[in-house]
Amino acid sequence: MTFSRLPSDHTIGIIGSGQLGLMIVLESARLGVKFNVLGNKRDYVCKFAKCFDNSEDTKFLDDSTLVTFEFEQGNEEAMIKASDEGKLVPEYKNVWMKIERDREKQFLFENGFPVARFVIAQNGKEALKIIRDEFNWSAVIKKVRGGYNGKGQYYIRNMNYDPQIEKINEKVVVEEFIEFDHESSIIVTRSNSEFVSYPVSHNVNKEGILLYNYGPIRSYGEKEIARKLADKLNYRGTMGIEFFVNNGKAIINEFSPRVHNSGHYTTNSSFTSQFENHIRGISNSPLGATNTLNYFGMINLLGVPSIDPLVENYGNIFWYNKENTAPRRKVGHINISGESIDEVINKIEIIQKMIFTQRTS
Amino acid sequence: MTFSRLPSDHTIGIIGSGQLGLMIVLESARLGVKFNVLGNKRDYVCKFAKCFDNSEDTKFLDDSTLVTFEFEQGNEEAMIKASDEGKLVPEYKNVWMKIERDREKQFLFENGFPVARFVIAQNGKEALKIIRDEFNWSAVIKKVRGGYNGKGQYYIRNMNYDPQIEKINEKVVVEEFIEFDHESSIIVTRSNSEFVSYPVSHNVNKEGILLYNYGPIRSYGEKEIARKLADKLNYRGTMGIEFFVNNGKAIINEFSPRVHNSGHYTTNSSFTSQFENHIRGISNSPLGATNTLNYFGMINLLGVPSIDPLVENYGNIFWYNKENTAPRRKVGHINISGESIDEVINKIEIIQKMIFTQRTS
Repeated sequence: MTFSRLPSDHTIGIIGSGQLGLMIVLESARLGVKFNVLGNKRDYVCKFAKCFDNSEDTKFLDDSTLVTFEFEQGNEEAMIKASDEGKLVPEYKNVWMKIERDREKQFLFENGFPVARFVIAQNGKEALKIIRDEFNWSAVIKKVRGGYNGKGQYYIRNMNYDPQIEKINEKVVVEEFIEFDHESSIIVTRSNSEFVSYPVSHNVNKEGILLYNYGPIRSYGEKEIARKLADKLNYRGTMGIEFFVNNGKAIINEFSPRVHNSGHYTTNSSFTSQFENHIRGISNSPLGATNTLNYFGMINLLGVPSIDPLVENYGNIFWYNKENTAPRRKVGHINISGESIDEVINKIEIIQKMIFTQRTS
Repeated sequence: MTFSRLPSDHTIGIIGSGQLGLMIVLESARLGVKFNVLGNKRDYVCKFAKCFDNSEDTKFLDDSTLVTFEFEQGNEEAMIKASDEGKLVPEYKNVWMKIERDREKQFLFENGFPVARFVIAQNGKEALKIIRDEFNWSAVIKKVRGGYNGKGQYYIRNMNYDPQIEKINEKVVVEEFIEFDHESSIIVTRSNSEFVSYPVSHNVNKEGILLYNYGPIRSYGEKEIARKLADKLNYRGTMGIEFFVNNGKAIINEFSPRVHNSGHYTTNSSFTSQFENHIRGISNSPLGATNTLNYFGMINLLGVPSIDPLVENYGNIFWYNKENTAPRRKVGHINISGESIDEVINKIEIIQKMIFTQRTS
């Protein structure tokens, strides 16, 4: 079900109760819609939306006129039920492709999108054989399931590989190891009749987790690729697409059929945030303007229970109020603004030092 | 009580449950603090904060570590109690001045701020005599109490005055009738150690209610006056100051010791909104950057239960979800962005027509 306007008697259900859902609710409450959330009732978002435990998915669905998700690796059963009821936006096929990584790769390759060379293997041993024969011992092995934030990935640069790989007894993607000049991403929103995009950002990842990003940077075709992809998927809502850029050419690393970590800057720097545009896009409301303050940056707070409040001199903190602040867990982020890219990068360095000093003291 | 950081075990109490409190909560939830609200439990803000009825002010105060207010004409008793407990920021003296308009006028005049010539009268008859003798039948009579959104004001341009005036049996301010080129305002935030300001906007009021505003416009000293005023009051938090500008000179119309309607554009166009900066200011956290997208505008939605969703093509709607949408009641607003002032003004005109067409059809 969709609707062309957003009066206060509509209720949007969000599958997932993490920080992305929190931001959707806080940034879109102004639209006057009500929000239901399916997930863990103890999460911070439940202070701002009506929450249902995962076991209550039937009640959640009955109470929601339109259903979306904050994260594609979420409650798959609820997504399928919502899809069967015709309530899920974006469509379930987007989730299906992301649940097993080879489906996404295959889709992109078959439709002519630029991706790294890859081969599917049925287990670790077969992958190693392929890497020896076809990739000259330089490749990445990625389990097809559960792969996000760098989980289930093995980098192979020579014959000395992690012996764990031989024990992998599930399907994997063997992917060419990409040397890149930088990683980038773009956030776009599409509705039935419109397409808008935000500026391209430079992303710095470590072990599969975004540490920080900044922009706008020079575009190497990211916007055009994103538009083609969104059209091909007949996509509705906000999506993030990540790229490797090498020698002036951008190839898709992966896409996320949802709001994206590399677009957190939009809540401070853009006229309409990626979160509000997601809700406008899935409900086929007119999309909001994406003009953005020059220049922007974002730094993730990973596993720090608190930080020196003086950090606020350099950027705006967004706390997720998680109970569990385990190492590498995303517990908040800091949005940054500057008069130049150099100023933004300088602030990122200062903040990183402030956080690092605190963690080791 | 104040605190130098904003961890999640702090609870900020807001006196008043209207749209200004709603925006404070939605824009500042990211800081990780909890919010209590004192007012009407049926108001929209109560979906996002813990609400207390006005009769529960003791419980509300006990549960709050720091107390502020969304509107100075609110629950005066609760403000005084919070002040007595040392929890109220900004200080009660700011409210005291606003509760009876002559106090504000006197304060501004005595401290050398530019204001319209005024005389205090004890009732309507005395006011009329003063207007005859000293103002040549050109003045405004303003009741000292309950004066906001144009309430309790009488314009006198010649001897034919509203006969109701003779019946006024309370203190009034008689004020010179100001011919102005335009009205303007500025939003500023001050903490114990910092001061930040947003761009000056051009405001169009009708019968004491803001219809729309836009900017940035040329400044006629508004920022310098605002800074002096905030310093003189030893102010903490966000405040709005309204001006009449005539022949290149700005004089203060009035100040509001709180977040202000003419600063609603900051939630879309500024890196840090006036609402988040209010919370940062009252808690003596570092203030956020106020850089703002050129050019911005805002149009109030007055007494319209719903509008043509195509309006969203021209700006971002913020609905207050009020139960009562009586004529002239503020029920929402639309933030606008443009590449030029002319583009913003053009969008304001288009939106006004769309709303007007709907109301008369």
